[in-house]
Amino acid sequence: MAKREDSKSQGMMLQGIATQQDLIMAPTAAAGPAHAAAKPSGSAEVPFQTLLFTTQDNITTICLNRPHRKNAFTEEMFHEVVKALELASQDDSAITVITGSGDYYSSGNDLANLTKPSKGGIEEKARDAHDMFRGFVRAFIDFPKPLVAVVNGPAVGVSVTLLGVFDLVYASERATFHTPFTQLGLCPEGCSSYTFPKIMGVTKAKEMLLFCKKLTATEACRLGLVTEVFPESSFQTEVWTRLKAYAKLPKNSLTVSKQLIRDGERETLYAVNDRECAQVEERLQSEECLNAVVRFFQAKAKL
Amino acid sequence: MAKREDSKSQGMMLQGIATQQDLIMAPTAAAGPAHAAAKPSGSAEVPFQTLLFTTQDNITTICLNRPHRKNAFTEEMFHEVVKALELASQDDSAITVITGSGDYYSSGNDLANLTKPSKGGIEEKARDAHDMFRGFVRAFIDFPKPLVAVVNGPAVGVSVTLLGVFDLVYASERATFHTPFTQLGLCPEGCSSYTFPKIMGVTKAKEMLLFCKKLTATEACRLGLVTEVFPESSFQTEVWTRLKAYAKLPKNSLTVSKQLIRDGERETLYAVNDRECAQVEERLQSEECLNAVVRFFQAKAKL
Amino acid sequence: MAKREDSKSQGMMLQGIATQQDLIMAPTAAAGPAHAAAKPSGSAEVPFQTLLFTTQDNITTICLNRPHRKNAFTEEMFHEVVKALELASQDDSAITVITGSGDYYSSGNDLANLTKPSKGGIEEKARDAHDMFRGFVRAFIDFPKPLVAVVNGPAVGVSVTLLGVFDLVYASERATFHTPFTQLGLCPEGCSSYTFPKIMGVTKAKEMLLFCKKLTATEACRLGLVTEVFPESSFQTEVWTRLKAYAKLPKNSLTVSKQLIRDGERETLYAVNDRECAQVEERLQSEECLNAVVRFFQAKAKL
Repeated sequence: MAKREDSKSQGMMLQGIATQQDLIMAPTAAAGPAHAAAKPSGSAEVPFQTLLFTTQDNITTICLNRPHRKNAFTEEMFHEVVKALELASQDDSAITVITGSGDYYSSGNDLANLTKPSKGGIEEKARDAHDMFRGFVRAFIDFPKPLVAVVNGPAVGVSVTLLGVFDLVYASERATFHTPFTQLGLCPEGCSSYTFPKIMGVTKAKEMLLFCKKLTATEACRLGLVTEVFPESSFQTEVWTRLKAYAKLPKNSLTVSKQLIRDGERETLYAVNDRECAQVEERLQSEECLNAVVRFFQAKAKL
Repeated sequence: MAKREDSKSQGMMLQGIATQQDLIMAPTAAAGPAHAAAKPSGSAEVPFQTLLFTTQDNITTICLNRPHRKNAFTEEMFHEVVKALELASQDDSAITVITGSGDYYSSGNDLANLTKPSKGGIEEKARDAHDMFRGFVRAFIDFPKPLVAVVNGPAVGVSVTLLGVFDLVYASERATFHTPFTQLGLCPEGCSSYTFPKIMGVTKAKEMLLFCKKLTATEACRLGLVTEVFPESSFQTEVWTRLKAYAKLPKNSLTVSKQLIRDGERETLYAVNDRECAQVEERLQSEECLNAVVRFFQAKAKL
Repeated sequence: MAKREDSKSQGMMLQGIATQQDLIMAPTAAAGPAHAAAKPSGSAEVPFQTLLFTTQDNITTICLNRPHRKNAFTEEMFHEVVKALELASQDDSAITVITGSGDYYSSGNDLANLTKPSKGGIEEKARDAHDMFRGFVRAFIDFPKPLVAVVNGPAVGVSVTLLGVFDLVYASERATFHTPFTQLGLCPEGCSSYTFPKIMGVTKAKEMLLFCKKLTATEACRLGLVTEVFPESSFQTEVWTRLKAYAKLPKNSLTVSKQLIRDGERETLYAVNDRECAQVEERLQSEECLNAVVRFFQAKAKL
């Protein structure tokens, strides 16, 4: 069906899985301060380069912390999130939260990776991306405790697709949800090829996953991708108040209940992830993808 | 993952699967008269202790009839519902309805069971609860004809979770839907760990099943748990008028069509039920659950 | 469960899978002109008897073209649609559209088939219908490119059920969605026994599939069966403008992404289709179905 397109543009190095976050971002979005008024504070921090990792009130918070790059995922950040989830799964917290620092939740994979020089050629690059990404998604599938996304602003690419394996998704009214895979010659990942049709029905899911429709927070909530939307002004206060109450529920009961639901589709999610990653690996080496990336950098150079 | 917590509180006898119905019920709710204006009447009744069982106009109605206890499920009622479903599956009716007598649809499992003395200790109690409950849910999975819930008022616990295996759910605007499992140290059952995410999407389902969010009838309808909501004043008239019309459709065609849809997930539902019941059995013996029950009775004693 | 009802009415010949389209259609609906203002035109046409087949702007359009019969499916049309999908899958287009000519999208299977004389008796008829219909639905399951329904007016029966395997469904506000299977003694098909509960949740799906509830376009959109509804006045312009933009997306990426999503449930869809077709074959020979058809023609004769 999908023919493997041979690529001669080996000079173009692909190091991550690219999304077009920069194409769609306004140039204004300098990183503002994290609106963390009601957020747990003063707790022990584990040192990460790209994350803030804190635990308080039975809640472990993993905050994506590259606001100057709109929390785009570098290789390092992929690895650190996996490490952070490992720590959170073993600590005493009842609930784990992922959120973003600054104006964005996350702009997805960082296209800047693509300009890095590489020894092994595009095939090896694509294989490495496959392996890293597969493990990254698996860490979310296997996370044992309730996992909550506090979506403080726009979300792009993998930061959107992964929401389908979270347990709760709270969004500011400022948040948007965008998965422009086909525009970049790519394909859905993060188990979204399975979770999105299940959550919102196939005719809505395809509009996002095939035709790159960007959703507002309200639209995403109506379709079931988001649990609830809050006004920007009270977002942090309302969300953290609620989460602190939830984190007082019997801990084992929460974990057991989450596992009960997950166990019914764990094997399916593994298989979906494998299928998606294999396809991403192939897509990364395709003419369509390389051309899209070239166009992206040409457009950027003209600014 | 979920550690089996050894319980030394063997004095606390657990005889059913407890939900916190009484914790959340206003003390006002004395059983009012069943609003059965348009309901079929005058038909042959089969004698049950906890149910009213009637057949008329091609409709068999199983009415939960412990209004003084808000139609909470005793062991006897679990058994009688299974028996009633068996009778309904074999009679000449086209459609079977389950509804509640008085102000409540059902307050779920009756915590009063817990105070009964027991010989075999908590492990045997939990095993017995497992066996009874597993068979109860299976009777719903296997019911061959269209099954309609006429939700006349608040629904709690298993009376909510089971709605996911009904064919139609009509609700009065007075109805609410509450599954406070984790508050009692328990976990989802009634196949809800599978049906709820499928019906309403995972981020909405988890808010109910993990975090005990109570839904209004309108919210439940928007999420697909309820087919349609009616004003309290015309609820019984409108619903029964419609059901009488539906019950005139070709009988075999209805049954075949229902089975066609069910057959695609029957094995999945069996497996889900088994997994849930095994987990409930374990939870019933946990410290978290026993502590929650002790707190419940302490709170009640103070009133 | 569903007993095979022996039929002595062998004189009544069933040649297709009947739905009651004519029962529910107003007599006014003479075929109006296709509202094709913004539709691609001037392209090469492949000759079909019951379809218009055109390709332009990377879009292949299959237009059901029996407006005088409200685009009801004859045997010939079933076969021609399969042929047209085959051609569309192999041509250079990025997207394939199915739409209707005149006021209707499609009124489903044509009951007129039933009056044709037959040599082999009802069993052979039912078997032939089974084989043809099974292949027809399979052609939709297997279609490799994004498939879009442009629902220009009322849709009935199989033209509704198949929407569950489309990728996008755009509807005019004039469109309605009706699956009156049980009224005719039949049962769901087109994979709807699987796709509808998945898309809209079981309590909404059963109201359509068991109890023949007709949806407006807005209702169908809220339930996820329709991607978006447009005002009748701007329907064709808005839809085709959007589709032309979509058809410029990287072609392989679209196909790969669609396949990725489909591959996860292809085997399930095959099995569902087989189960449904076997049941339809049985239903076509049932008393309930034959009686319903007799009533239909008696009612028609009285007009």
